[in-house]
Amino acid sequence: MKSHYYCSQCLTKQVIRTCELATEKRELREEAVIECMKFLGSFNLKETPSYFGSQIQKIIKEITGNSDPYRIYKERSTEFAEKMIEKLSIDSIEKALRAALTANSIDYGGDKIIEYKETFEEMMKAEIAVNESEKLFKEIEKAEKIVYFFDNAGEAVFDKKFIDFFEAEVIAVGKRSPMFNDITVSELKKMGFENVMDCGDNTGVLRIDKKLEKELKAADVIISKGQANFESLPELWNGVYYLFKVKCRPMSEYLSIPIGSDMVIKI
Amino acid sequence: MKSHYYCSQCLTKQVIRTCELATEKRELREEAVIECMKFLGSFNLKETPSYFGSQIQKIIKEITGNSDPYRIYKERSTEFAEKMIEKLSIDSIEKALRAALTANSIDYGGDKIIEYKETFEEMMKAEIAVNESEKLFKEIEKAEKIVYFFDNAGEAVFDKKFIDFFEAEVIAVGKRSPMFNDITVSELKKMGFENVMDCGDNTGVLRIDKKLEKELKAADVIISKGQANFESLPELWNGVYYLFKVKCRPMSEYLSIPIGSDMVIKI
Repeated sequence: MKSHYYCSQCLTKQVIRTCELATEKRELREEAVIECMKFLGSFNLKETPSYFGSQIQKIIKEITGNSDPYRIYKERSTEFAEKMIEKLSIDSIEKALRAALTANSIDYGGDKIIEYKETFEEMMKAEIAVNESEKLFKEIEKAEKIVYFFDNAGEAVFDKKFIDFFEAEVIAVGKRSPMFNDITVSELKKMGFENVMDCGDNTGVLRIDKKLEKELKAADVIISKGQANFESLPELWNGVYYLFKVKCRPMSEYLSIPIGSDMVIKI
Repeated sequence: MKSHYYCSQCLTKQVIRTCELATEKRELREEAVIECMKFLGSFNLKETPSYFGSQIQKIIKEITGNSDPYRIYKERSTEFAEKMIEKLSIDSIEKALRAALTANSIDYGGDKIIEYKETFEEMMKAEIAVNESEKLFKEIEKAEKIVYFFDNAGEAVFDKKFIDFFEAEVIAVGKRSPMFNDITVSELKKMGFENVMDCGDNTGVLRIDKKLEKELKAADVIISKGQANFESLPELWNGVYYLFKVKCRPMSEYLSIPIGSDMVIKI
């Protein structure tokens, strides 16, 4: 998905938020904001929002010397997710999928910081707006190999629970290095995943190298979490199940679906 | 006051809001946003926020062909103010000042759109954080000539009520042409002010021409409404009473006063 004119507002918010997370030093924040604004002078509607977002991250990391500004948030999200998952009795793949979708709200990358502590269980009751999950469950059941593109830390705790219901071999795909609050390959390994691959990080375009391409070709099912992956992945690969919450106005307009809607869709 | 790094976020919000008010045509909105972002590539901390804000307005007006994007909001604000003032029995200069300060909330220029319909009377009860109004009242009482810098439309209805308590000759100062929701000289004339002067418009710096300078020198009291005037006017003129509500984080940090605080201060 190409950028919407509205993305300029969200990107500038990301600049401020990331700079403030990255450093306490006023001069470094100022320098990073000014450099990011210079870069956003090149804002256009041909590139994906992720391209601009990732370039901003790169600039801020370089200037502030902080390679992982969202580290604290990621840790907090993971703690929250671990506590929350204890409270829920997830005893079926259906419930696990529902929880993993709800957990897509634990996000700090977009226009709003969403972390519905008290209402997580309420949110799980919401109807999935576009729901191809029955088809997905059937494919999962028959599959021997599944590739799973992860999204954010915290949320990944719920993804893991969902994956626990798979009998197939699972290839877990994360970011090579820190990018917003996205989970990285090393964090996926720490979570216990054995087959882990990366899909790039700071180029703003998901990168599918030969090794990952081979796995995608061999996979019976490909699952991708999160809106940002949905923005880029369809241009690179067909037949992917996207599980995400519609989080911003441009995406809402693009899909003609209200913000907050949960999606399980194969493209 | 020079720009704060945080102003970049507020300015980008202003871009989107103004473009959407200026035109329904998607292509024009897109063109205007891209041009504004190009301009904001020059964002720095040496210029005032008003400089950037006014340049944005200029770009959007040129591209969309709409010379007054905030016209509808201004009309709505004025209607609201006229209804509200009917409900309040403003029978003293003290109450009139309090109402004029509260009316500074009727604003669409900054980070948030503030229009507290139900709570206007509640807001009038709030203590003025920095309050030199007693000194101001004494000066008004003795004055023969008062220069009054107006801020937004709508709010101006309350300023007029406040001015009704002055016995001095009043010079009403507004913007030469539309600028956000600021009141213009022609609108001040329509409101019944006879001595009206302008302080510029789209240069981003208040402009004090020879004629206005003469009046300022001759004035016994100078009153300036609104945060934006407070950002620029102290560099041009001394001994001005500023009446405004602290509306954003940079100003709050600059003054070490919470957002939402009411100020009556002579500088």
